[in-house]
Amino acid sequence: MKINTTTLAKNFIKENLKEGDIAIDATMGRGNDTLFLREIVGDNGFVYAFDIQEEALEATKNRLIENNLYNNVELILDGHQNIDKYINKQIDCAVFNFGYLPRGNHNISTKANTSIIAIEKCLKILKVKGVISLCVYQGGDTGFEEKDAILDFVKNLDYNKYTVIVSEFFNRPNYPPIHIKIIKEI
Amino acid sequence: MKINTTTLAKNFIKENLKEGDIAIDATMGRGNDTLFLREIVGDNGFVYAFDIQEEALEATKNRLIENNLYNNVELILDGHQNIDKYINKQIDCAVFNFGYLPRGNHNISTKANTSIIAIEKCLKILKVKGVISLCVYQGGDTGFEEKDAILDFVKNLDYNKYTVIVSEFFNRPNYPPIHIKIIKEI
Repeated sequence: MKINTTTLAKNFIKENLKEGDIAIDATMGRGNDTLFLREIVGDNGFVYAFDIQEEALEATKNRLIENNLYNNVELILDGHQNIDKYINKQIDCAVFNFGYLPRGNHNISTKANTSIIAIEKCLKILKVKGVISLCVYQGGDTGFEEKDAILDFVKNLDYNKYTVIVSEFFNRPNYPPIHIKIIKEI
Repeated sequence: MKINTTTLAKNFIKENLKEGDIAIDATMGRGNDTLFLREIVGDNGFVYAFDIQEEALEATKNRLIENNLYNNVELILDGHQNIDKYINKQIDCAVFNFGYLPRGNHNISTKANTSIIAIEKCLKILKVKGVISLCVYQGGDTGFEEKDAILDFVKNLDYNKYTVIVSEFFNRPNYPPIHIKIIKEI
């Protein structure tokens, strides 16, 4: 099995998130990351998950119930650009997996402007040494606009405050997704 | 302490190299990586280390002796483009840290053409699921020629045979070094 962008994201989260932590899944989708975060933070931690589609909340709720982990988690039917309406504490980790809902409507997808507002709001409430993981898609239905805007945004983050590492699958065809790690330094 | 390219390289090696393995330090320098590899492979493994400067061999030999690890290692005074003269077995890992000898003569440094020959020779003898770690410098005394040539080389590696991941410290000034991971897939 070949390593991919999801592997990079999961490894980064595993290295940095721990039992008892507070995490945000900013792009709930079918709940893969919500479940993954909930497993790591355990019964003393908490996960907030956001999506604008009822279908995503249903799918995620069912995945959590199947795994007996539908507690210490809040599934929120709203765009991630509004996280500050729901969370007024510091967080240890936020995870973004941009694009459209897997097996969902490709016309409904994350957009550069709201994605960047959401990242900014997560950075504000991120603890020192807290991390943000971004999986950014490009090409195909997705185009390049969101990727270019996000890369431009993270390139301009103050390097004294944030370490930004961008990783690319450099020799794969068809514009593979990019992984971005952000670590809050001070 | 902020993460840097050396951290990325060490984490990648730690995740993939194990006790009993055979590793190459293609750019011995002052022996940091030789010692690091030798610690991981242990008394049942082996490390071959290359450098063209006597000063590097002396420094590395002393570091190994200080750590009681001057066995199961061969320090070779020759360019890494000649590794096939010394190694005729399969290897698990090769490590390159390009540029000049730390605290040495900045006029003596690795060069694109021999660096790429060395990487090619390491790929040939790399086991399946074996890995190569490259720390590539740019800017300053180093310039961009070697970096550009190495990126061009790895971009053209067959993606069915090799996974190549390029990681950059995206928001740091002054052209920070780049880390390249290569994994042999088949």
